[in-house]
Amino acid sequence: MYKRLGSLVSYSYAHNSKLLTQKHFRFIHSEIEPTMSTTSGLVIPCKAAIAWEAGKPLVIEQVEVAPPQAMEVRIKIKYTSLCHTDLYFWEAKGQNPLFPRIFGHEAAGVVESVGEGVSDLQVGDHVLPVFTGECGDCRHCKFEESNMCDLLRINTDRGVMLNDGKSRFSISGTPINHFLGTSTFRLGATLNVAKPKKGSTVAVFGLGAVGLAAAEGARIAGASRIIGIDLNPKRYEEAKKFGVTEFVNPKDHDRPVQEVIAEMTNGGVDRSIECTGNINAMISAFECVHDGWGVAVLVGVPNKDAVFMTKPINVLNERTLKGTFFGNYKPRTDLPSVVDMYMNKKLEVEKFITHRVPFSDINKAFEYMLKGEGLRCIISMEE
Amino acid sequence: MYKRLGSLVSYSYAHNSKLLTQKHFRFIHSEIEPTMSTTSGLVIPCKAAIAWEAGKPLVIEQVEVAPPQAMEVRIKIKYTSLCHTDLYFWEAKGQNPLFPRIFGHEAAGVVESVGEGVSDLQVGDHVLPVFTGECGDCRHCKFEESNMCDLLRINTDRGVMLNDGKSRFSISGTPINHFLGTSTFRLGATLNVAKPKKGSTVAVFGLGAVGLAAAEGARIAGASRIIGIDLNPKRYEEAKKFGVTEFVNPKDHDRPVQEVIAEMTNGGVDRSIECTGNINAMISAFECVHDGWGVAVLVGVPNKDAVFMTKPINVLNERTLKGTFFGNYKPRTDLPSVVDMYMNKKLEVEKFITHRVPFSDINKAFEYMLKGEGLRCIISMEE
Repeated sequence: MYKRLGSLVSYSYAHNSKLLTQKHFRFIHSEIEPTMSTTSGLVIPCKAAIAWEAGKPLVIEQVEVAPPQAMEVRIKIKYTSLCHTDLYFWEAKGQNPLFPRIFGHEAAGVVESVGEGVSDLQVGDHVLPVFTGECGDCRHCKFEESNMCDLLRINTDRGVMLNDGKSRFSISGTPINHFLGTSTFRLGATLNVAKPKKGSTVAVFGLGAVGLAAAEGARIAGASRIIGIDLNPKRYEEAKKFGVTEFVNPKDHDRPVQEVIAEMTNGGVDRSIECTGNINAMISAFECVHDGWGVAVLVGVPNKDAVFMTKPINVLNERTLKGTFFGNYKPRTDLPSVVDMYMNKKLEVEKFITHRVPFSDINKAFEYMLKGEGLRCIISMEE
Repeated sequence: MYKRLGSLVSYSYAHNSKLLTQKHFRFIHSEIEPTMSTTSGLVIPCKAAIAWEAGKPLVIEQVEVAPPQAMEVRIKIKYTSLCHTDLYFWEAKGQNPLFPRIFGHEAAGVVESVGEGVSDLQVGDHVLPVFTGECGDCRHCKFEESNMCDLLRINTDRGVMLNDGKSRFSISGTPINHFLGTSTFRLGATLNVAKPKKGSTVAVFGLGAVGLAAAEGARIAGASRIIGIDLNPKRYEEAKKFGVTEFVNPKDHDRPVQEVIAEMTNGGVDRSIECTGNINAMISAFECVHDGWGVAVLVGVPNKDAVFMTKPINVLNERTLKGTFFGNYKPRTDLPSVVDMYMNKKLEVEKFITHRVPFSDINKAFEYMLKGEGLRCIISMEE
């Protein structure tokens, strides 16, 4: 019962079952040399980007990081990134505000020390912390179709470790909350859930990093047409790199976008993936799939009060609606196959990296995201 | 472009591609002896049960049945039955009224004569007319997942043959409308769409003939728990024969039935099948499946104005919503496997037959159904 800490900090935290080990990402070996820990068991002082208030610039300050407890792992973060989920909880509009907090949840690092009972990770292991875990023992972990581990499932409202309900971060005794969130493994929504056949037609709603990952999944699966839907026409140019072949801007039409898509595709697309979280886009994504065989997959996280509505006949006409969490990947079992795709050059991760900043410029990374500039900004913790 | 006629008549109609031939149901050979037709090309006078007005008793009268046109087949009906769809369109509450009309769509008969171009059926063939067809050439027929043939898909509002837009039935020159509807192959909703694994838990909403067929499918698939949900507590006793192991009456609880089911099943059932057509039951059926892997299948035909509503998080938590039409069976390709199940005694069709009446007592069959007595009443056309 533990969870990962925010990664906008030099030393961070994860439960053992939330880490992928170095054997799965040899590609960073040349960048990071593992060293034995001399800090094991000690409180480590390090730099962290603290969010003291909703929407206010982060402040880089020194925090104390407590040693890991049972089944916990302390990690030296090397690189991290931001996604809209960080922004969303930092802005805290419509979400429970929880401050002060250390955000970040897309990172790579090296194990600094491990707590009692951790046997499959050791100091120096290169790790990829994941916001959702795989205990291996619960019903979800045992069910082939599910990746929603009972023990280590995402919980954005929690800012403490589950072992003792406390934070491992503090400044002069004031605890600082942890954070976990979502990630960009959403091409799994396409490859694992929508499963388009070679030559099929796929609609992707929302052409941000998540939607482009879904499009990349469709490209890898061999879709012949990938229709991108976005309110921002500038997104199309970038999206072409991810296999998007056609673009529809709902603003350009005075009828529902599902009707436009049905007309373009002789009755509807084979698969659609919704990556905006907007409720109307969800409904359009469902209603734009072809009857008889169409499958719509919801990925985007909706507003709490949103209600999905459709005429039952749209379902009865043999359309399928599915949701996915983390692209249906079981973190430890399945993510190595994603790394393999990258190593085999089937998956082109570099296309997602549009900016790089040193840790001291962390607020620039927030600005890029706020303005919708680029996709992912890599934050180097040691610069 | 043709469709099947109502079967509450001694001679009826179907498009060639809507008929299963005698090789698929040898089990009726002992009852029916094929004979050569002496009426081919002629108008045949025969008895039919005419619905002149919505909700009024049927009147048995003599009708003239025109000879078959291109790709059409005229059938001597031996046995027929009623289902709620007949009742629904006969009552015409909330549906487009179309009278006078000959209802019925669950029948067995013998080919009397065939129209131009029909090569795979001949006079004397024992046939099972199906309300939905399989042309074999359209995109739906070619897609493995779909059975919603573009050419011969169900259309309850149509009362004429598509070849010339006319009826083949008349009384003194007044045309009588045809009818087609739904059927009880809905155990396909379980076996082909919900696909419960051996040992899994299945909820069935509505314990009429359709729901019991779905339960029978779950029993055949080896489900360990089959939870029947119905407002009528009398249904449970009958339902046990179809494998139902537990019963929930929503009236007995002051909270949503999906919560009751989740509590009974440690978080939800593996599969659910909705067979009532009631919109609240549809929502409950979806929300009562387990997150991570649960699949809900909608079968029941809803009111035109009904809207399916759920919180998107219920989808995002990896639940799947599917609809099915005719149990996803492709009529000609797949129904023989159902006949095989019957022949191998895996499928127990006799359990559905609770009454038998001669054709002259057709209105009794409507009464049984109106009162909710029994499941299927076999109407013998020759008694």
